[in-house]
Amino acid sequence: MDNYNASLDTLFHALADPTRRAVVQRLVKGPAPVKELAAPYDMALPSFMKHISVLEEAGLIASKKQGRVRTCTFNPDKLAAAEKWFDDQRTIWASRFDNLDTLLTTLQGETDET
Amino acid sequence: MDNYNASLDTLFHALADPTRRAVVQRLVKGPAPVKELAAPYDMALPSFMKHISVLEEAGLIASKKQGRVRTCTFNPDKLAAAEKWFDDQRTIWASRFDNLDTLLTTLQGETDET
Repeated sequence: MDNYNASLDTLFHALADPTRRAVVQRLVKGPAPVKELAAPYDMALPSFMKHISVLEEAGLIASKKQGRVRTCTFNPDKLAAAEKWFDDQRTIWASRFDNLDTLLTTLQGETDET
Repeated sequence: MDNYNASLDTLFHALADPTRRAVVQRLVKGPAPVKELAAPYDMALPSFMKHISVLEEAGLIASKKQGRVRTCTFNPDKLAAAEKWFDDQRTIWASRFDNLDTLLTTLQGETDET
């Protein structure tokens, strides 16, 4: 499996969880300490840290410890990879209709000529 | 968990696998029978059908049996839901920089006035 595919696997897996999506949605607004990110959830810290690790492994966020505070930041590059995949599918899907339009126009022209 | 979030869970989970993404990539070009979709994979048919089921449950594809042939078609609506999530994050991320630009311009203005 190539790197692009492996990267999309971990990326989509990371986004297939409501807690992890909520963390991303918070971090696009700006960096935040883990303690603040974890606050809304009724979850033990080790469980929450597993979500943070999955997001880090997918490259969606980065974290840095300064003293006793670990701060997380959003990394926009990986979202771009996922968006590209969606764009590619949409382009192919749309071109299918363009081809159908061309075919219909051609057929219409042929009908008009007869 | 609301319907939108549950829908994104199953959608991103469905896309977190290279075989399932490849099936979607094939079906955006047009409908195809399961036999044709399965052909490139060294995989038992029941295993392949599990992938088809995951994609159907996520609403990314639909399948219909006519006689002995089951044909799959792509459903573009669900991709739109995922794209919307990415668009929302990008908008918030971009507005963050707009705000920063405004702040910098304001501070620059204040510096110029002094």
